Amino acid sequence: MSSTTKTAPSRPRWVADIARWDFETDVAIVGFGGAGACAAIEAADAGAEVTLFEVASASGGSTELSSAEVYLGGSGGTRVQRACGYEDSTEDMFNYLMAAGGDLVHEAKVRLYCEESTGHFDWLVSMGAPYKNTEYKERAIMALTDDCLLYTGSEKCWPFREVAKPCPRGHNLEVEGDNGGPLLMKTLTAQVEKRSIRVEYNARALTLIINPEGEVLGTVVRIDGEEKNVRARHGVILCAGGFVMNTEMLKQYCPRLVEGPMPIGNPGDTGTGLLMGQAVGGALINMDQHFITLPYYPPSSLTYGIFVNAQSQRFINEDCYHSRIASSALDQLGGKTYLIVSAEDYAHPPFMNAPIVGTGETIEELAEEVGLHPGMLRHTVEFYSENAARGEDPLFHKSPEWLKAMPPPYAALDCTLGEGAIYAAFTLGGLDTQTTGEVLTTEKQVIPGLYAAGRTTCGIPRTAAGYASGLSVGDATFFGRVAGRTCGQRSPQQSTQSSTG
Amino acid sequence: MSSTTKTAPSRPRWVADIARWDFETDVAIVGFGGAGACAAIEAADAGAEVTLFEVASASGGSTELSSAEVYLGGSGGTRVQRACGYEDSTEDMFNYLMAAGGDLVHEAKVRLYCEESTGHFDWLVSMGAPYKNTEYKERAIMALTDDCLLYTGSEKCWPFREVAKPCPRGHNLEVEGDNGGPLLMKTLTAQVEKRSIRVEYNARALTLIINPEGEVLGTVVRIDGEEKNVRARHGVILCAGGFVMNTEMLKQYCPRLVEGPMPIGNPGDTGTGLLMGQAVGGALINMDQHFITLPYYPPSSLTYGIFVNAQSQRFINEDCYHSRIASSALDQLGGKTYLIVSAEDYAHPPFMNAPIVGTGETIEELAEEVGLHPGMLRHTVEFYSENAARGEDPLFHKSPEWLKAMPPPYAALDCTLGEGAIYAAFTLGGLDTQTTGEVLTTEKQVIPGLYAAGRTTCGIPRTAAGYASGLSVGDATFFGRVAGRTCGQRSPQQSTQSSTG
Repeated sequence: MSSTTKTAPSRPRWVADIARWDFETDVAIVGFGGAGACAAIEAADAGAEVTLFEVASASGGSTELSSAEVYLGGSGGTRVQRACGYEDSTEDMFNYLMAAGGDLVHEAKVRLYCEESTGHFDWLVSMGAPYKNTEYKERAIMALTDDCLLYTGSEKCWPFREVAKPCPRGHNLEVEGDNGGPLLMKTLTAQVEKRSIRVEYNARALTLIINPEGEVLGTVVRIDGEEKNVRARHGVILCAGGFVMNTEMLKQYCPRLVEGPMPIGNPGDTGTGLLMGQAVGGALINMDQHFITLPYYPPSSLTYGIFVNAQSQRFINEDCYHSRIASSALDQLGGKTYLIVSAEDYAHPPFMNAPIVGTGETIEELAEEVGLHPGMLRHTVEFYSENAARGEDPLFHKSPEWLKAMPPPYAALDCTLGEGAIYAAFTLGGLDTQTTGEVLTTEKQVIPGLYAAGRTTCGIPRTAAGYASGLSVGDATFFGRVAGRTCGQRSPQQSTQSSTG
Repeated sequence: MSSTTKTAPSRPRWVADIARWDFETDVAIVGFGGAGACAAIEAADAGAEVTLFEVASASGGSTELSSAEVYLGGSGGTRVQRACGYEDSTEDMFNYLMAAGGDLVHEAKVRLYCEESTGHFDWLVSMGAPYKNTEYKERAIMALTDDCLLYTGSEKCWPFREVAKPCPRGHNLEVEGDNGGPLLMKTLTAQVEKRSIRVEYNARALTLIINPEGEVLGTVVRIDGEEKNVRARHGVILCAGGFVMNTEMLKQYCPRLVEGPMPIGNPGDTGTGLLMGQAVGGALINMDQHFITLPYYPPSSLTYGIFVNAQSQRFINEDCYHSRIASSALDQLGGKTYLIVSAEDYAHPPFMNAPIVGTGETIEELAEEVGLHPGMLRHTVEFYSENAARGEDPLFHKSPEWLKAMPPPYAALDCTLGEGAIYAAFTLGGLDTQTTGEVLTTEKQVIPGLYAAGRTTCGIPRTAAGYASGLSVGDATFFGRVAGRTCGQRSPQQSTQSSTG
């Protein structure tokens, strides 16, 4: 363990201090999840010698734990979109993602992702990923059938439907149940194994090796308790996941994730890749932002209800994506969130699992039990209900398909974070990269020899309010491929020794 | 200029590459504003040889441009608090600042600041800073008389009044008009000049000098177009301000400050200190957070009005501190903020300067002109007004002194960012430091020889929602002193040469 202490990811190793190289390869990739797998395949297909280092004893990462939906479209539509009757345009996809990203968006990444999205779908298919030409039409957190295409964001919802024609872009693998992640990783791992890619499991990356010019020449990994110096002639690609499992980093950057929300990720999401990159000058950006969700549907009938805050006011159109609702709920002054629903629309939400804290034949009775202001709650429910009966939501523009009057009796679910409802979260901050996968300093200089992809980077998804399912695995696989290609094609570095030696 | 390109603040200089030392000193301080001045005085008083490097041609920094109020209290009260009849307790001050900081707070810094706050007041007085034993009782952004003590935060407001007994803690210097900054810097500069402290003006710090162990041995500064290598035997203290003048960094970390809000700061607030610290492993934290304000009073009579969002809903108790209101306004879905006020309370707000976009003898007429929902606005105004007439605000708990009925006619001011109203902002993110002023890595390791204070660090104030006037200059002068003392007392470094040479 003393080697861990000596070699912290936040301190690089100087090449002048490297006595010998234990491994030599063209491309060293840290992490064998979705991003690392795609990077490895593309680097190998570009002709480079590739070595993958994975801290676990098998491939997978957080991609394997996910549904592995990918958010793809544009260019007239993927094969599945076209088969289902959707002619998706690149501009619609671009405009949607730009609006979703708000002022934190990375326009060039979004542009590239949208323009090459159908090509990425075809590549995934060519790797063996199966997608059926069918649509899943329910409002759902994930498809539990083997159907493919579904709405996974807020495309049909205000304000997004005003900036881009809605189109479903979530692509679910052809597998029953929530088993997309294992299938995708099995598929990609088989492709890695088909190529002459060396894989070292149980290998913990410790730090990067640099020369005095700041160029990355390799990485130090610990295998069987021993530090090994890895020379990476073309460069190192960090695909080591996010930091949702690192409590100290959460305290520093995302304190509200420390207690309460369930972390979404694998035990290796400890921020190692971020720290290794930062130690050689890489900028960590968007570090406060995180996906956080309140999975309040299914049942989708709860969408007929209304969320209110401590002031008994609505604050969001309830038909939008679940993490957009969670994000808005957590911003409310007074720190309370209730879902008010007519008994006729109530069914227990198994994922959210929020407690019922009030019921009532009248709004006043409900308000009394919940501890809300009766007159204010009455106005909120009546104003909403009267307009909804006419198919209107003048305040938050909920879509007509989810608008109807709210007759008594009522129930109130306490969706306040920390009061029993399930929230779940992962981090969206990471290393700043170019569209090429090259890691950048705060002054926007490229760090030679260093690449990153997946949740080690700050990628396409940047906020909970603008998230859509399929953006993380979409981004990780897409920009994993880009990083693999860029690094694979890089001319081998000339200098392997310190010039100050 | 080529030397600038070669020596970016985000790349350190290796000691092995230093041909000779042009300056030698015990303590090198980058930046001669409030933090740097206090650091220099304390380091000198600890017996160290001190050199200040200031990019401008005079001392001042952003402290000089500010009102230089300091937020101080606790321990039974400062001399002024006691003279004005306030017996402030350390626990009340601590509880207030903890609540104001929310989950981003640094408890140990707040604790130290509260415990030693009255001592800091006495020190400022001993330096020659004049404070009158009088209170300024208006609701104001700043005292424009020479009176001293005023409420500068949200102490009397919900929810803070529920966690700590309110007490005024803003201390304004004894000078007419908004001239506290020049007076404080003149006072501190005179103290620097009394000591044998070398000051180099027109000296731009370029980067830090480190050895292979990561210890900071000095800094490179450019004077008269030439790079000078400064050996700092005890260490370097970065007091170079924030980054509100660096558009690229704002784009990266605080995109909404790029256009619209007026930057509060001096031209040197370009993030140089942050980048220099980050380059040697210092963690940049809280980088998205910023003070942003809508200075909607004076006249204080506007506090009788109500802010509403695009949904015609109130969202805040209007009696709280102006940046808390701005912060909440900017979080509102729909992106609109209006101040609705009875004609009897209206007077033009000279600082905010928001345009009147509607007037009406009735609420419906007003709503029509503004573009709000008439029925919803009617409910919001009537519900507020009826309760306010009874001295109640059941939703946002505005203080009774600001509650009264809102009779017609009405006016609406458009306070939406970008629609004419003045917003002003500065950054609150920076280097992570210990309570000693030592700079920390992301893994909470101390970087030997590196200290920081003021807006180069992430200090006491961490959010706009919890800000109070006097926290920045309070924090900068207090922790400037701490850093100066710690660095001044440090044992001189032993190693000045690279061990890998």
